[in-house]
Amino acid sequence: MPRYALKIEYHGAPFNGWQRQVDLPTVQGFIETALARLEPRAHTIAAAGRTDTGVHGLGQVAHCDMERDWSPFRLGEALNYHLKPQPIAITECVLAPDDFHARFSALERRYHFRILSRRAPAVHQAGLVWQIKHPLDVEAMQAAADLLVGKHDFTTFRSTICQAESPIKTLDRLKVSEVETLGGTEYHFDVRARSFLHNQVRSFVGTLERVGAGSWSVADMAAALAAKDRAACGPVCPPQGLYLAHVSYPVDPFAKA
Amino acid sequence: MPRYALKIEYHGAPFNGWQRQVDLPTVQGFIETALARLEPRAHTIAAAGRTDTGVHGLGQVAHCDMERDWSPFRLGEALNYHLKPQPIAITECVLAPDDFHARFSALERRYHFRILSRRAPAVHQAGLVWQIKHPLDVEAMQAAADLLVGKHDFTTFRSTICQAESPIKTLDRLKVSEVETLGGTEYHFDVRARSFLHNQVRSFVGTLERVGAGSWSVADMAAALAAKDRAACGPVCPPQGLYLAHVSYPVDPFAKA
Repeated sequence: MPRYALKIEYHGAPFNGWQRQVDLPTVQGFIETALARLEPRAHTIAAAGRTDTGVHGLGQVAHCDMERDWSPFRLGEALNYHLKPQPIAITECVLAPDDFHARFSALERRYHFRILSRRAPAVHQAGLVWQIKHPLDVEAMQAAADLLVGKHDFTTFRSTICQAESPIKTLDRLKVSEVETLGGTEYHFDVRARSFLHNQVRSFVGTLERVGAGSWSVADMAAALAAKDRAACGPVCPPQGLYLAHVSYPVDPFAKA
Repeated sequence: MPRYALKIEYHGAPFNGWQRQVDLPTVQGFIETALARLEPRAHTIAAAGRTDTGVHGLGQVAHCDMERDWSPFRLGEALNYHLKPQPIAITECVLAPDDFHARFSALERRYHFRILSRRAPAVHQAGLVWQIKHPLDVEAMQAAADLLVGKHDFTTFRSTICQAESPIKTLDRLKVSEVETLGGTEYHFDVRARSFLHNQVRSFVGTLERVGAGSWSVADMAAALAAKDRAACGPVCPPQGLYLAHVSYPVDPFAKA
């Protein structure tokens, strides 16, 4: 059975997250249903990141096994046809080696978070950002973010329902930047690690926002991390500013020949 | 009566354009209704550009006259409160001189157009771009666009229902650029003039797209302009990629003191 790697974009709002659930709309569920229109049988696809309700996909990666030899171009087009009118798009589809696994082969996941700061309600960015009304101090947020980079026990920044075996993870990068857009000032967070705990990025960003607003100090962030206690976390921010942006593999399956 | 200048952002999709119409949802209609919640009487506001159905506002400017002395901050906040849940936002509200007129004082209007080129359906950009599936030749489009800059009889690029007295206008700028975004390749058009004919920008972009796709030559564009004949125009492109981006005045009413 040929294996295909899919790069997937989706809007988080209408779905109960990535993972298939009985009787609930999920991204995995809609893609597996579209696959069943092409080869009528049960399909199970694996993805690099099981994003939560409301979180967007921009560079989500999954793989599927097919019985027929589909041209990757035709498979991607056929899936997009059957995915309509859901806001899910297969942006790339390629033949992958048999031992490629979208989840287990992944070396690094990159998440992107957008905060929009302005008083007037978001219009074109509605649903695509977390909107706040006050400005943030980028230097303070970056100083607090720097404390999180590296190998730590991230119990503070982990949902109580997280199923990971260990709270110890290595954060490769957490870069905060301020971007002037036509719609107002945005703060972007580039967060990279081999893997993440449940709600880790939203726990980071929600706590960093408190630092940027001045109600937490950088020392408060250090104390929160050292506490290894979920109760020491700042507020978990909402999902609509979060994007699974990119997944890295030892050999990029989507690299142009 | 104090006069206020409003900078306005709106999503074009739900509205039958800017201009008030009986029994149809329009941006002007919703703003005038919101004003009537603050001072109960008939309100008539004037705007720099009467955008068509589906066209977005990003830097639309209008002015209104109030009986009470509103603090500009409070007036903007109150309008945004009463405009909910419409995708219309007052992004700036300032006191303006009595002789400021959003339409007649305007020196230049800037429109921004976004084309997204990719095969997979637009997800996060849906409704915010005109999507095509093929790449475009930016240099060819720019060469054709350069023919349009300056003072010309734009009869070819003017809707047959245009009510302007003369088809002669001066186009200040028409710059085409290619922008790589996370969602794919976009082509942006920056179009500036003191004033525009009806459907002029969409007639330009629709025709330039044909040049970029290679089905029209630059010489075809020259012939179309010289024809001064609406029938010589290329296809008029759809409205959802078009934004009224900025309006310039002799003195910027929104300049920070």
